[in-house]
Amino acid sequence: MHTDLVAALDIGGTKIAGALVDGAGSLLVRAQRPTPAQEGAEAVMGAVRGVLADLAASPLWHRAGAVGIGSAGPVDASAGTVSPVNVPGWRGFPLVDRVAAVTGGLPVTLVGDGVAMTAAEHWLGAARGYDNALCLVVSTGVGGGLVLGGKLHPGPSGNAGHIGHISVDLDGDPCPCGARGCVERIASGPNIARRALDNGWRPGPDGDATAAAVAASARAGDPVAVASFERAAQALAAGIAATATLTDIDIAVVGGGVAGAGEVLFAPLRRSLRDYATLSFVQGLTVTAAVMGTDAGLVGAAAAASTVRSGAANGVRAVAAP
Amino acid sequence: MHTDLVAALDIGGTKIAGALVDGAGSLLVRAQRPTPAQEGAEAVMGAVRGVLADLAASPLWHRAGAVGIGSAGPVDASAGTVSPVNVPGWRGFPLVDRVAAVTGGLPVTLVGDGVAMTAAEHWLGAARGYDNALCLVVSTGVGGGLVLGGKLHPGPSGNAGHIGHISVDLDGDPCPCGARGCVERIASGPNIARRALDNGWRPGPDGDATAAAVAASARAGDPVAVASFERAAQALAAGIAATATLTDIDIAVVGGGVAGAGEVLFAPLRRSLRDYATLSFVQGLTVTAAVMGTDAGLVGAAAAASTVRSGAANGVRAVAAP
Repeated sequence: MHTDLVAALDIGGTKIAGALVDGAGSLLVRAQRPTPAQEGAEAVMGAVRGVLADLAASPLWHRAGAVGIGSAGPVDASAGTVSPVNVPGWRGFPLVDRVAAVTGGLPVTLVGDGVAMTAAEHWLGAARGYDNALCLVVSTGVGGGLVLGGKLHPGPSGNAGHIGHISVDLDGDPCPCGARGCVERIASGPNIARRALDNGWRPGPDGDATAAAVAASARAGDPVAVASFERAAQALAAGIAATATLTDIDIAVVGGGVAGAGEVLFAPLRRSLRDYATLSFVQGLTVTAAVMGTDAGLVGAAAAASTVRSGAANGVRAVAAP
Repeated sequence: MHTDLVAALDIGGTKIAGALVDGAGSLLVRAQRPTPAQEGAEAVMGAVRGVLADLAASPLWHRAGAVGIGSAGPVDASAGTVSPVNVPGWRGFPLVDRVAAVTGGLPVTLVGDGVAMTAAEHWLGAARGYDNALCLVVSTGVGGGLVLGGKLHPGPSGNAGHIGHISVDLDGDPCPCGARGCVERIASGPNIARRALDNGWRPGPDGDATAAAVAASARAGDPVAVASFERAAQALAAGIAATATLTDIDIAVVGGGVAGAGEVLFAPLRRSLRDYATLSFVQGLTVTAAVMGTDAGLVGAAAAASTVRSGAANGVRAVAAP
């Protein structure tokens, strides 16, 4: 039997998406359920089972040879468990074993959602052809992943590249993670909006007080809106420069809703990078926008599974059902 | 002919050390010259040639099958050049080709000195048995290196793990590198001493105003001295936590002269790590003292060469003479 497809799952706090993905990264069959994030562990697992059942109803299902999961973090790839911040019912939930059981013993690969997005951008997107890359998602939170030495680098826990929770301001504002001055605490969409509001920016008649509305004001020249994006860009630049200095990457790919602000974010980001990426071996660092869009999580979960199955990534084990 | 030895070079701003190193990490023959750091490129190369000539005079030289170089950075392993900050005559100096020519075509491996120290601690020291590790040197500067997925990770440039120049205080004091708030700007020995002096600490009758003297005062309970080490520890903790969050390491090994302060540094370092290493996958991070001592550079340069020759490291090429 020809098992050339990966059953991919993208698990977030709002929805659980699934797809059968082929070797070219095409999504042949899709399924989706809302995440019952405030319900218990079994209710959330029920939604996962529903997505898998929808996929299994496809005549293509028999070609699925593996499952790849990208999940909101933190995840524990070595234990096969997930504890997504936005899904309180899942703490140390044994997702890998449960999915393996549901799918009749397919090998299951688990990575964090930032790592999945990175796998997608490296396979088919803006990081294609780069052997050393950081990919970031700047959205409600800030996540990321790494490609090192030509391979996805999930790390033993599946969370490597989690740039949102490195501190770039060690005396800065407390972050919900417990630390201070994390990149996410300064650069996430909600924090861009909050900072603008704190400094006197007001939403328009539609009442939209999101980072997207702040971006629109910034494009129109509002100095408070511009300053809020500049501060976010400064924090991202410090974090990207730190990552480059530590891991010797050649490119940083920035995606997620906040990256949709375009030059309002990218222009100050490139300027600030010159301030922080100062050593000779990181001065050539390129920053560019992600290109894979909202399917990146599914494409990347499939890529992570394929990569791991072919033995090309460090630190993630594929787990078969007992 | 049995070529089981590596000719190792440890190139710093003060001295150039060399040794013939065997497969157990023993230094069978040693040589050393002062670095004529303020002279021209050829004078510095002359010292390197002198060290190599001393090694070549040994009856064991015929067993040398490779050269490993750990150099003060930055280095460019892909170009085979070095530009040590403290050796102004060497800027983009083609050390790999020059050493290959001097040694009659032995393959030459070049890494930064922090990477070399890391290779030594991973091979025979405190990081032995750990597949994912950060090793730091806290001294006049702050350097480091990474082991990822069981292998030394020099990165394509040979500088990966350069924790001294990641910013943990994005609005902080200007660093000579051009950025602000770098770990080195807060945690290096000279900065520990400067901060203590700025806050009213005074040296004893011997006039010793180094970090070692501040450490002695801290052990005796001087609150300004204690506070200066606590601030250094906080910056190191933020940097180590950032590295762990990005690369999913299990252990941080801290060496260098400042680490000789012992618990004056390590106690606040462990406390501060709990403040910054907050995500589940980094909470278990261990911090420990380096054990390889002053020979770490030579042992590590040999390890880097051996590792690369056996194909076990990413990103560093061994270069043969033309």
